Amino acid sequence: MALFDERWGVSLTHLFEPSGVAVVGASRTEGKIGYVAMANATAFEGPVYPVNPSGSGALFGSEFVPSVTGIDGPVDLALCCVPGPAMPEVLAECGEAGIGAAVIYASGFAEAGNDGEKLQAEIVAVAAEHDISLLGPNTSGFLVPATDLRCSFASGVEEIPAGNTAVVAQSGGVAHVLAFQSRRQRRGVSAMVGLGNRANVGFAEAIEYFDGDDRTDSIVLHVEGTDDGRRVVEACRESDTPVIAYKVGQSDVGAFAESHTGALTGDHELYTAGFEQYGVPTVDATDGLLDAAAALGNSPTPSGPNVGVVTAQAGPGIIITDRIQRAGGRLPELTPETGARVDEILPGITYDDNPVDTGRPMPAFGEVVAAVAEDDRIDIVLVYELFEAALGFPVDTLDGLAERVGKPVLFATEGIEEELDAERAELEAAGVPTFETPERAADAAGVLARYAELHAGETATDGGRVPLGGSRPADREVLHDE
Amino acid sequence: MALFDERWGVSLTHLFEPSGVAVVGASRTEGKIGYVAMANATAFEGPVYPVNPSGSGALFGSEFVPSVTGIDGPVDLALCCVPGPAMPEVLAECGEAGIGAAVIYASGFAEAGNDGEKLQAEIVAVAAEHDISLLGPNTSGFLVPATDLRCSFASGVEEIPAGNTAVVAQSGGVAHVLAFQSRRQRRGVSAMVGLGNRANVGFAEAIEYFDGDDRTDSIVLHVEGTDDGRRVVEACRESDTPVIAYKVGQSDVGAFAESHTGALTGDHELYTAGFEQYGVPTVDATDGLLDAAAALGNSPTPSGPNVGVVTAQAGPGIIITDRIQRAGGRLPELTPETGARVDEILPGITYDDNPVDTGRPMPAFGEVVAAVAEDDRIDIVLVYELFEAALGFPVDTLDGLAERVGKPVLFATEGIEEELDAERAELEAAGVPTFETPERAADAAGVLARYAELHAGETATDGGRVPLGGSRPADREVLHDE
Repeated sequence: MALFDERWGVSLTHLFEPSGVAVVGASRTEGKIGYVAMANATAFEGPVYPVNPSGSGALFGSEFVPSVTGIDGPVDLALCCVPGPAMPEVLAECGEAGIGAAVIYASGFAEAGNDGEKLQAEIVAVAAEHDISLLGPNTSGFLVPATDLRCSFASGVEEIPAGNTAVVAQSGGVAHVLAFQSRRQRRGVSAMVGLGNRANVGFAEAIEYFDGDDRTDSIVLHVEGTDDGRRVVEACRESDTPVIAYKVGQSDVGAFAESHTGALTGDHELYTAGFEQYGVPTVDATDGLLDAAAALGNSPTPSGPNVGVVTAQAGPGIIITDRIQRAGGRLPELTPETGARVDEILPGITYDDNPVDTGRPMPAFGEVVAAVAEDDRIDIVLVYELFEAALGFPVDTLDGLAERVGKPVLFATEGIEEELDAERAELEAAGVPTFETPERAADAAGVLARYAELHAGETATDGGRVPLGGSRPADREVLHDE
Repeated sequence: MALFDERWGVSLTHLFEPSGVAVVGASRTEGKIGYVAMANATAFEGPVYPVNPSGSGALFGSEFVPSVTGIDGPVDLALCCVPGPAMPEVLAECGEAGIGAAVIYASGFAEAGNDGEKLQAEIVAVAAEHDISLLGPNTSGFLVPATDLRCSFASGVEEIPAGNTAVVAQSGGVAHVLAFQSRRQRRGVSAMVGLGNRANVGFAEAIEYFDGDDRTDSIVLHVEGTDDGRRVVEACRESDTPVIAYKVGQSDVGAFAESHTGALTGDHELYTAGFEQYGVPTVDATDGLLDAAAALGNSPTPSGPNVGVVTAQAGPGIIITDRIQRAGGRLPELTPETGARVDEILPGITYDDNPVDTGRPMPAFGEVVAAVAEDDRIDIVLVYELFEAALGFPVDTLDGLAERVGKPVLFATEGIEEELDAERAELEAAGVPTFETPERAADAAGVLARYAELHAGETATDGGRVPLGGSRPADREVLHDE
């Protein structure tokens, strides 16, 4: 258990909740990284200081300072827009100035071979000396929409809305892919982080931080490969906030991946088994990752894998049923009482078992959903209904239903976006996460079912997620540390 | 080969290209199916006649007629908004009136057990006598956006744009799911058809029709189960237009499916193997089905499974590489000439093998794509680039590239939708299909690779897709007819 004691001890509060921000290498030249970083950072609510020994006057309303040590005001975070070789000195100055966190955008570190590895070891040593959390190097940064903290250079990040999913990606590119997707899905993120080389801020530190973050209700991981797998899964187990993982690289992408973040992608099945052993459901695509987060982060924790499906159209119902079963979820028969209740609501209903098929949207559709949700045999409810403008969605009936029955209620639909968007937003506000396709909704329900099984036997008051055992031989085989 | 000779001989021209339309059971009562059918049908360019013995005056500008035999004008298609038991008589009258096609919305036929089966046999006999193509029964109809022919009651179908993919779904609900999705993806459909019970218009007839349809460049099938599998795959093989199939029901959804369109879902692996044997790639989700159609229907036919990937961000590049390889595509090394050319365009490029990783978007990005597209080892090109507003997409360089090199060029991106939409549309117009996520683009490339392998050895002048062999024992095992 050596590694478990070997945490860096860095805190990410300085990184994600800085009192003020220094942009080291700030520049007046449009298009330069030091210009864009400054332009994006100034939206932040706290003070932002442009730092450059050759700068003078003001940039975006703030006076240049020659060094972080010369900043007259609160500052916790340095955004380092300087070449890699300058970093040891910059970090030493940051330490001197009491700055507790730095983002290192430069590449040419551990991902670039021997000299880079030495340089990375050097900055890690300086950071350890001064207690500095390092995001990167070789990262495109991070984003906290709720406080307009934009430490990324990608075009359009200012439009990414605040949500309750923390995106923690090994690759900065994938972090942005996920953040933009979350916007397209009208969900948003509590934070978006690209870890890059993970010099001293890795998955474990990020999970620990976001588990304690009030704005975060689910944490998603994009993992290419790590050499501290045990620490990562231990952090997942300790997290009260649900964690879902997307481990990429089932086939051999070694050489290219190595050149990227300096991490081999490792054995996919071992990772997947390791995550699941520690209570983390895994998925196989970026959209599935965010769907799972939306389901887990906006629902009561499911207490079992039994899914009740209510559909207004049989075809999507078949797709959903098939897909849930393949994902390990179950569709139990409804109780006779529920069957009778459904028959009373809709005499001559198309199909009154599980899935319940009403044959078409109708005013009583929401009541059928409620009947299934209240069935004791059901742990998770999944609804499919094509949007019918004359009827709308059963928002009133579903409002608060999930909370009342203590079960997730997921809702998938399709139709003309502009027509259904307002009511879809109302469903979301009513505690009903929504999904775009029958398959994606079913996969999300499948993740809920797996999550319930992985966390079976836990009580709400448990701190950890699964019983700790002193000697589980599988642990050593599944994820090793170096 | 008995079944091969037993085709219904129905032509779908009357169904999809009617001179005029009769709405049988047209009604003044808002909300009734006969009202909505009439309301939707009147958008059609040809004459539309409300038919009802108890109707009088005009409905949507057209005078009621008591029977289809009393219509004074051209009419090929009857939309039958009457209960199932009335259908034999209605069809006999249609036959008398020279109407060659009818849509039967009513349920209560073969999907409903014995009596329904008899009723279905009866309407099939009447239709055979009068040479009437029957869509349904138990269908929600069809749609041809290009001619505003709207024979569906679903809310919002008037907003589904014209595209070049024909959606042929066993389930009317899934037909609508796919059509709405195609709109969300800004693609549209050449037609959307829900086959329902397939009384005498089944997959084979639809494939044959759309293969000859000028507006259709790809055909997608949603299949729950059929009892004429051989005819379906034979029709696929005869089709010069690419066909892609989504067979649902891998797990046991038998009882529910039986209640739906009266078709057992059958053995999933046999179907998949059968389709692939006859040149039809299969996919596993509605979104993947439309993605594959967009790739195959808007690209030169790929001549091999070798994919060249160009990415501006490494992380998505790893996802794509992994996913293509898992789907059976290959990422060969580029020729030394291409490598040298890429190095010349971008000295110090992040990664110059396949995938080529430029590290970020840049003005020369399009030239790198062109270099890879021109590599003789590459059959299919897949590009990933997060949208950078200051640079835009390399539309000029990619315009006509696919056609010039005779290879598909796919493009996946992510960013702020409103910012990138115009340029994405330009890419599409330039012969470059676009995709939403790295996974979906990679899966589409994987389908292209499989399509190339399934059709290897065919020449452009081949009528059929694979060499016909007199005695392939596997045929009998894979898909049987009754």
